[in-house]
Amino acid sequence: MIVLGIDTAIRCTGYGAVDFRSLNDIRILDCGVISNSAKLPHSECLRRLAGGVRQLISQFKPEALSLEDAFCSRNIKTAMILSLARGAVITIAAEASVPVYVYSPKTAKRAATGNGSASKEQVAALISSMLGINIKDIPLDATDALALAMCHGQVLIRPELKELLPKPV
Amino acid sequence: MIVLGIDTAIRCTGYGAVDFRSLNDIRILDCGVISNSAKLPHSECLRRLAGGVRQLISQFKPEALSLEDAFCSRNIKTAMILSLARGAVITIAAEASVPVYVYSPKTAKRAATGNGSASKEQVAALISSMLGINIKDIPLDATDALALAMCHGQVLIRPELKELLPKPV
Repeated sequence: MIVLGIDTAIRCTGYGAVDFRSLNDIRILDCGVISNSAKLPHSECLRRLAGGVRQLISQFKPEALSLEDAFCSRNIKTAMILSLARGAVITIAAEASVPVYVYSPKTAKRAATGNGSASKEQVAALISSMLGINIKDIPLDATDALALAMCHGQVLIRPELKELLPKPV
Repeated sequence: MIVLGIDTAIRCTGYGAVDFRSLNDIRILDCGVISNSAKLPHSECLRRLAGGVRQLISQFKPEALSLEDAFCSRNIKTAMILSLARGAVITIAAEASVPVYVYSPKTAKRAATGNGSASKEQVAALISSMLGINIKDIPLDATDALALAMCHGQVLIRPELKELLPKPV
């Protein structure tokens, strides 16, 4: 079961594709970022983001997308720009019939690493250890995306985390 | 010059396509709504909205999309859900290389009808009069979309409104 985690943003979207073969065989397939120059207008950022996500779905054929819930302490303008990007990502997933699950940052960290208040660096260290890869192979902006993928996969394969499974959006 | 106005919402999106042939020859091509049942999840609403907008762009080949600015007095949750829908619409327009212009409700009404504080009913009456159609032929939810299309078209063809032209998003 392949899960694609996406840490959505208008300028720098992290992604991580993880293959959950069993509780003891979890493999990272890819991770990275879709970057948009600060000079680009929003429409062009959304076009590039949508194209990138469409390509990742086509390449990895994930069973689900895992996104971060956006109802945090951001200001309304930032939150609305972030929502534009989330709208693009959810649209592309829906057009490809891939269900989208949304987790709070805390739940994502807790399910992915066992620690809901872990720092980005701790998450990266734990995930690289779980996946048996070098921490330096994870771009920092992809850490949250990998945590989101790890979160949804763990929620599905670990019976004790089953209660964390949300409805798809 | 054809302009497609879209009054975006997750549940009921109005649209209006208007052909600006000259100052004295402005024709309505179509108007209506893309409705989503309250039972549908957001992802399905976005998929249907994206598909509908893609079809309208393909049918009318507009030179521009005209949307309403969303930074109003809505609460943050509503604003973020609305932004998901706007993200879907802007993405589809960008993928079709159609520029998107965003107007405040007040500017849209002012440019479309000469009165920035006109009611929905007044806007419908003025627009149907300008387009030489029966007011009953305009679905109420399409009124704002037609006003947005009329706004952008008038801003482009009326020299005195030139200063209202925003940068595309």
